[in-house]
Amino acid sequence: MRKFEAVVEAVLRTEHVQSFVTSKVDGLEVDLGGIPGDRHYGLLRPADVRQKFYKRGTMIANRRQLSLLSVEECAQVAAALGIAEIRPEWLGANVLLRGYPELTQLPPGARLLFESGAGIINEGENEPCTGPGRVIAEAVGDPSLTQRFVKAAWRKRGIVASIELPGQLRAGDKVTVMVP
Amino acid sequence: MRKFEAVVEAVLRTEHVQSFVTSKVDGLEVDLGGIPGDRHYGLLRPADVRQKFYKRGTMIANRRQLSLLSVEECAQVAAALGIAEIRPEWLGANVLLRGYPELTQLPPGARLLFESGAGIINEGENEPCTGPGRVIAEAVGDPSLTQRFVKAAWRKRGIVASIELPGQLRAGDKVTVMVP
Repeated sequence: MRKFEAVVEAVLRTEHVQSFVTSKVDGLEVDLGGIPGDRHYGLLRPADVRQKFYKRGTMIANRRQLSLLSVEECAQVAAALGIAEIRPEWLGANVLLRGYPELTQLPPGARLLFESGAGIINEGENEPCTGPGRVIAEAVGDPSLTQRFVKAAWRKRGIVASIELPGQLRAGDKVTVMVP
Repeated sequence: MRKFEAVVEAVLRTEHVQSFVTSKVDGLEVDLGGIPGDRHYGLLRPADVRQKFYKRGTMIANRRQLSLLSVEECAQVAAALGIAEIRPEWLGANVLLRGYPELTQLPPGARLLFESGAGIINEGENEPCTGPGRVIAEAVGDPSLTQRFVKAAWRKRGIVASIELPGQLRAGDKVTVMVP
């Protein structure tokens, strides 16, 4: 097990369940289902196109409770797209990390331990789709970005995670990344 | 995603929560916490020595709901120990598979889809300890096996898993192994 240190640049949550776009908050209290009230909250979730091996809509364990990004990968995607920035809100991120640049390469099963108490498990790469691309395209005013985002963000769109130890996630937290 | 086919040779569960030793049954109905009534059942479990990064006893998400072995790895461990067999009961297995020999090498996050309906997630290698070694030593009548088991079973002791899709696991089921 190798250990790395990173820092929480921001924590975010959805304002309502109708949109995946998130907003910054000071901190979040998470439980076994994720972030109470958030769009992705729950012990169960319907299978979607990313779990093709289940019939779409089948209720399965929710391993996509949180979405995490790295500042460094966001900057790379923005550079590849020729735009000034990729805001974590646009991608529906819940945690923006700084100091562990290749977040998307983190192996499934890696743990992230937050200074404020919560512990989470990496459930794997978040595969980019056109949803956030559309949000970026609208924000920047360039419709071509919808599709270009999907390609540019491949293997740089961060990870999804689920809660192992309920607790707090706070902006400014140190995070210990435990890589198996 | 690569697909492989295997077969369920046996399914097993603990008879009571006081012992990890399991007994064969025809089938099991599993839910989000694992096998109801089994020693390892629950949405939460206390952190132990395998989660050193949490204070021992802290209640965390239970990712060690099921234990799986392969017939082929059991035979290799038995051969290394110079004994006739390793029975899955002695290791507290819940599922014995045939046809996916290197089960312990399966990467965390791989899915196993059972013909009878359940879907499970590989949570990683089951690290051998002296508990099952002691059961083997007593069954075979050779005290040296307690320690020798730990060494011989390294990277051959199967995996632990948690439930993604509640349903049935049955002896004779075909299992599709989905490797990311």
